[in-house]
Amino acid sequence: MTGVSRRRLFGMTGGALAIAGAGAGAGYFTGRQGEPAQVEPFRGAHQAGITTPAQDRMHFVAFDVTTTDRGELVDLLREWTQAAERMTAGLEAVENGAVGGVAEAPPGDTGEALDLPASSLTLTIGFGPSLFDGRFGLADRRPPALADLPHFPGDNLDPARSGGDLCVQACANDPQVAVHAVRNLARIGFGRVAVRWSQLGFGRTSTTSRSQTTPRNLFGFKDGTNNLKAEDTAELDQHVWVQPGDGPQWMAGGSYLVARRIRMHIETWDRAPLTEQEAIVGRTKGSGAPHGAAEEFAPVDLKAKGSDGEPLIADNAHIRLAAPERHGGARMLRRGYNFTDGSDGLGRLDAGLFFVCFNRDPRTQFIPVQNLLAKKDAMSEYLEHNGSAIFACPPGVQPGEHWGQSLFA
Amino acid sequence: MTGVSRRRLFGMTGGALAIAGAGAGAGYFTGRQGEPAQVEPFRGAHQAGITTPAQDRMHFVAFDVTTTDRGELVDLLREWTQAAERMTAGLEAVENGAVGGVAEAPPGDTGEALDLPASSLTLTIGFGPSLFDGRFGLADRRPPALADLPHFPGDNLDPARSGGDLCVQACANDPQVAVHAVRNLARIGFGRVAVRWSQLGFGRTSTTSRSQTTPRNLFGFKDGTNNLKAEDTAELDQHVWVQPGDGPQWMAGGSYLVARRIRMHIETWDRAPLTEQEAIVGRTKGSGAPHGAAEEFAPVDLKAKGSDGEPLIADNAHIRLAAPERHGGARMLRRGYNFTDGSDGLGRLDAGLFFVCFNRDPRTQFIPVQNLLAKKDAMSEYLEHNGSAIFACPPGVQPGEHWGQSLFA
Ligand code: HEM
Ligand code: HEM
Repeated sequence: MTGVSRRRLFGMTGGALAIAGAGAGAGYFTGRQGEPAQVEPFRGAHQAGITTPAQDRMHFVAFDVTTTDRGELVDLLREWTQAAERMTAGLEAVENGAVGGVAEAPPGDTGEALDLPASSLTLTIGFGPSLFDGRFGLADRRPPALADLPHFPGDNLDPARSGGDLCVQACANDPQVAVHAVRNLARIGFGRVAVRWSQLGFGRTSTTSRSQTTPRNLFGFKDGTNNLKAEDTAELDQHVWVQPGDGPQWMAGGSYLVARRIRMHIETWDRAPLTEQEAIVGRTKGSGAPHGAAEEFAPVDLKAKGSDGEPLIADNAHIRLAAPERHGGARMLRRGYNFTDGSDGLGRLDAGLFFVCFNRDPRTQFIPVQNLLAKKDAMSEYLEHNGSAIFACPPGVQPGEHWGQSLFA
Repeated sequence: MTGVSRRRLFGMTGGALAIAGAGAGAGYFTGRQGEPAQVEPFRGAHQAGITTPAQDRMHFVAFDVTTTDRGELVDLLREWTQAAERMTAGLEAVENGAVGGVAEAPPGDTGEALDLPASSLTLTIGFGPSLFDGRFGLADRRPPALADLPHFPGDNLDPARSGGDLCVQACANDPQVAVHAVRNLARIGFGRVAVRWSQLGFGRTSTTSRSQTTPRNLFGFKDGTNNLKAEDTAELDQHVWVQPGDGPQWMAGGSYLVARRIRMHIETWDRAPLTEQEAIVGRTKGSGAPHGAAEEFAPVDLKAKGSDGEPLIADNAHIRLAAPERHGGARMLRRGYNFTDGSDGLGRLDAGLFFVCFNRDPRTQFIPVQNLLAKKDAMSEYLEHNGSAIFACPPGVQPGEHWGQSLFA
């Protein structure tokens, strides 16, 4: 038995689907090896894919809207919502999609996820600054917090990996499920949107302390130790979720996503001594413990000094410069993925971190932190930011609503 | 408990390692969720990664040799063999690699696979035609079966995705483990080899009937149904493993790997009606059954005709043109992976199949089959071959030997 496959739920009606969705969230279905079927609820106060414990794989896509008709765009969001809800429940993009429709017509689902379980798929939508440029009558609805990102020192941005009117972040425990979802959304959008860029990722930043071990990034360090965690609900309200009164009402319950494609010069990093690598991060490589402590999850003590009177966490260490203390208490939810995209034509792998973070207001969170990192972080020498984007992720989808309904209402 | 992690085996000596390796193959260690630790034996009559049931993910890399010194190349193969054996056992590339060495020196392992189990990692080496060009005194050792691939109709090859003096195919159930292995081999090779190209893949062609369901490619069809299977030992000797007397003795027990990066025009495919898609493949999309049969694994009957007297499997169907009957009984072991590499700059995903196959002699297997497919296969309209390479994968590594020892002996 292979879990709740798209084929088995094939002929389900809307009613049965609703039940499946409800039950599945509570582990109603069982998946491979007797695990829960891994269905993440699509609807709720917030969009899934933000505080959802980070799945194993990501396919992130940014779209340009090619239609100039507001009605067409809203229709697309409505169609996308239906398909997204189905796919996150482990169903095909449309009913009778891949092989059950009219044989003389193109199938409504592309089929490569038939037989695969939902795999905790989440689909998260975001709206980029350019969507508010006036084409769709949204100019006066742009939230001030959806700020254009400034040019940070060292930025080497490729326009073909940056920006976008819309984004969809697809995360799942099976890359084929994430790729299938993005592809089917792109297909539904044909003639109305075009793929601007897309990024695959694996090996995520930890967003939960429930997981057994913190995954590592391609510098070999544990990533996400001192991250906001899915279970810190009070802090999430403070640092992640837009609160009523923060800006335009349509964003209340939403969050601002910043994505940065960060190439890591792993060949140079690999030539740095262990002590230097650890000084740059401010943590021990093996255990992940901050300097001055023995345990990974020990508090970071920025004041601790060695017998020589020097700070144990260096002045230009990454975790010192990114620390909330340095930024008026500002934190963010990091949710990035490692990537390797072939080689760079110069004999090296094109590898790095697709950094994604969620902010209540990037103007006081991501932007000042990145400004300081870009200027002073000893790690910067080994990094190159070559893609960048910011999106306003609207609140969760209520029953009967579609993605972005509050924006277009 | 997270399986046989690199950290736990950290201080093991060579002796303990040998035991770990031996035991692990027999499920001595247990991994996550009580499954066997997923260690594939590195040594044996044949290289692992060929008839090994295809793991979930692949990282394939082609190298150019930059040294012109034969001795340096042999040294590299020796160092690579040690590191490869360790990594496939779930260990770091070198003992005390990531965090246990001299703190003032660069770590010997890059660290991102610390804490991760072996994940069935296999590493398979191959030698390209260009390695035999005379730089290393190997000109008279080139096997005739390591033929230069001809230009096939429709080929649109990118030199930056083709060829290579050496290749390493890394397959594992965790992409981070495969990426770690390739990266550490590249690192060890620094100054002697440079990465020419690399390709990540997911969602594999089935190579075993033991798996529960046949995975699908990005056309939504089951892939690998009529493949040679790992358990068909007699057929493997006939179609995959080079036999004594086939050519130079050093290749006996080896196999020839052909890799083709095949871009699939999924947007066009998705507009083709289901009946047309099925006619192109020659199989039913849902079940995978060949036309004229009801079951996926039913024999392909190329003679079957419909009531209208027309062949049920069309004249230009993929499975008719690739069928052994059409090629004097020739078969091959396909071991490809789906890929998605971002977008193509024209609003579409860059997606397809990284086709890999193993042949006893490509001159009577891959080459004639691909020639016919390129000329007549109805599927070709939706495909673009943009990367191509062929490699001679030497036989398995015997105790005390290194990769390619038979070639350099
Ligand atoms: C490739 C680039 C980066 C790498 C390899 C990296 C790596 C790390 C590592 C290893 C840690 C310590 C473990 C942890 O608490 O997660 C960390 C912490 C952190 N990083 Fe990064 N990081 C990168 C980029 C960024 C960027 C662009 C930002 C935001 C602008 C950022 C913000 C943070 C924050 C806020 C912390 C937690 C600091 C604390 O309070 O202890 N990082 N990073
Ligand atoms: C993107 C390109 C390709 C796609 C999507 C594709 C897809 C398929 C599918 C769906 C099948 C039927 C199921 C199965 O038996 O595995 C199949 C069979 C087969 N394909 Fe391909 N294929 C591709 C390229 C190639 C190439 C380049 C070759 C070799 C030159 C090849 C050789 C074969 C063979 C030998 C069979 C089995 C035929 C039989 O005996 O029934 N394929 N392929």
